[in-house]
Amino acid sequence: MAVAKKAASKKTGASDKDAKTRTKIERLAKDALKVVEKGDNPALEIRMRALSNVSFNEKRRIIELGDKKQSREFFNTAMARKFMQTFLVANGCKTLLDENKTVSIRQMFYMTKHTLKGTQENTFEDQSESDPIIEDLEVTVDALREELHLFANKRGLITGQLTVNDAGDEIDLTRMGRGGWGIPSICEDDNLKFVSCKAEMILVVEKQAVWHRLNEDRFWERHKCILMTTEGQAARGARRLLQRMSTELKLPIYALVDNDPWGLYIYSVLKQGSINLAYESMRMAVPTVRFLGMSANDYKKFNLSPAVQIKLNKEDINRAEQMKRYPWFKDKKWQNEITALLKNGFKMEVDGFLTKSISFITEEYIPKKLRDRDWLS
Amino acid sequence: MAVAKKAASKKTGASDKDAKTRTKIERLAKDALKVVEKGDNPALEIRMRALSNVSFNEKRRIIELGDKKQSREFFNTAMARKFMQTFLVANGCKTLLDENKTVSIRQMFYMTKHTLKGTQENTFEDQSESDPIIEDLEVTVDALREELHLFANKRGLITGQLTVNDAGDEIDLTRMGRGGWGIPSICEDDNLKFVSCKAEMILVVEKQAVWHRLNEDRFWERHKCILMTTEGQAARGARRLLQRMSTELKLPIYALVDNDPWGLYIYSVLKQGSINLAYESMRMAVPTVRFLGMSANDYKKFNLSPAVQIKLNKEDINRAEQMKRYPWFKDKKWQNEITALLKNGFKMEVDGFLTKSISFITEEYIPKKLRDRDWLS
Repeated sequence: MAVAKKAASKKTGASDKDAKTRTKIERLAKDALKVVEKGDNPALEIRMRALSNVSFNEKRRIIELGDKKQSREFFNTAMARKFMQTFLVANGCKTLLDENKTVSIRQMFYMTKHTLKGTQENTFEDQSESDPIIEDLEVTVDALREELHLFANKRGLITGQLTVNDAGDEIDLTRMGRGGWGIPSICEDDNLKFVSCKAEMILVVEKQAVWHRLNEDRFWERHKCILMTTEGQAARGARRLLQRMSTELKLPIYALVDNDPWGLYIYSVLKQGSINLAYESMRMAVPTVRFLGMSANDYKKFNLSPAVQIKLNKEDINRAEQMKRYPWFKDKKWQNEITALLKNGFKMEVDGFLTKSISFITEEYIPKKLRDRDWLS
Repeated sequence: MAVAKKAASKKTGASDKDAKTRTKIERLAKDALKVVEKGDNPALEIRMRALSNVSFNEKRRIIELGDKKQSREFFNTAMARKFMQTFLVANGCKTLLDENKTVSIRQMFYMTKHTLKGTQENTFEDQSESDPIIEDLEVTVDALREELHLFANKRGLITGQLTVNDAGDEIDLTRMGRGGWGIPSICEDDNLKFVSCKAEMILVVEKQAVWHRLNEDRFWERHKCILMTTEGQAARGARRLLQRMSTELKLPIYALVDNDPWGLYIYSVLKQGSINLAYESMRMAVPTVRFLGMSANDYKKFNLSPAVQIKLNKEDINRAEQMKRYPWFKDKKWQNEITALLKNGFKMEVDGFLTKSISFITEEYIPKKLRDRDWLS
């Protein structure tokens, strides 16, 4: 039966998840239609995506969106345009689900942009108008944009002791050469499945060049792991993949970022989620991620050369002080870590370990950190 | 014999190419040493990397660096620092070759940065000091930075009817799911080999989302091709890979970029090389690349909606007028193309085809362009 069902949904090009998302969109439209047929003013109830509606859930250790809502009414000159836009994007997403295709948020802008008949008015002037509408739709129908078949540009690479099946292709991540597999922008389980895993942990690094160093040294072979780079701030695909690996493969995850406020923030977003995307933390944050480094204390601990020091600028200092006040960094060990950065007066990059030797990071730094259980979480 | 030699070089971790590069570096050092031993002033002869030493080779259709040289002397207070830096980087590259490792240009900065004994002076203050020294070394020993085991960040993805062997891993690019294989930063033939190829052409697109659209539609299967995205301006790895595919696989190459000066420039760099990296055109430019689109004339030809129009700004106009004056665009068909862009008064993105239908680009636009042989070169 299950097989038959799968075959059937393949024929229409839809997974069970897609069917569920489509139902959510259709319900939104039908509800509005009912109100219109009664001659009333249709409205959308949209959860507010504002700081005032965001909080840190101490128990679950993620940043969450609250329940405060705002109403978007059709018969309201200030809201009518956005009301129309919301349904245009909803309709666009329904088309994507029907055709089993995915597009970028920029492409969705083009799909829904046109000049209203008999007027000079465009449905959207700019992508800056359509992007927030997409986020509105996400919270309103309670579906990630990936479930709506939308994506932002992908970023991130992965190699290591894992075999996946993506869109029907079986991909052995131990055999990716120096290139690595590009982490797809959409990493939902109807497309991307974990086939087999020999890894015992996951190492996520911020910088591509650090990933390259570790990959060339075959770190993932020696340490039985999955090796991933976010290439800067993690894209949604990378975050979603990491969360799925965390829950489905149940592996410990270690993050290695530069010792600066930006690096700390990359770690923080991986772990707790972000204020901007608070409504998606549940499906993107990975509270089990551990901070392996680079710690302000590594300077002395590993007897690094002064050549690694980069003076903190004013922006760094302000940002670090701001982060000290985040509720998820209020624990004493984190307060000490951020204070140590400020006290050092300089930041450091993981690349700085090359002042020791080319493969110091592979052969000395990470193994010692893991051996000594020298991480924060 | 060939096999035995290969085994031997594998043991020391060096390819024949590496041995040649090492010899070049050693010759540089020995020559300087000889002069020093005679009590004379050692100097490096470095080909000038300036506009005044760059020209367009009409016959070969690439931008080339001329032979003008400048001397960098040790006993010259204005040059001594750079002289020292050049040898520091040369020494760093020799270490990389000896250990058969590759690092980023930022990592090379750290490898060579230290405080001079008994002074407060650093060998390098900033990466902006070491990057030009790397370029100096490239022209001086006549080796690409990739041959010196250095790389800039990689960028670009590839899928399609090609199987490669990279660093010993056989990778079938028809089985990369939606992620694609990350194009390595170093695509030299000692590491990356072409195993088998069923493709009859190569399509290069500028934008990642366009690549995603074509990959999801399995364009490379229907049209027997290799599908690549440069993700913006092409990184060196992508350019080098494209050149090798052009010469070794002898396939026609089509580029699809946005219809704006930036898109034209991406095409131009792929084809003729760039002024900044003129000394590398011979090994990076691909004069056979054809410009498939997006052409200013596509607006009428494909009856596009006004929704795709993005008004040209002053910078666009200046840039387009500048490009009209480039010798490699002096042909009438190119003059007409750029004039048409200026006359339109608007630019367009390939994503704009989504105003027609989601897969218009896959099903209509590219097939028609190819069928009609409607490209520029």
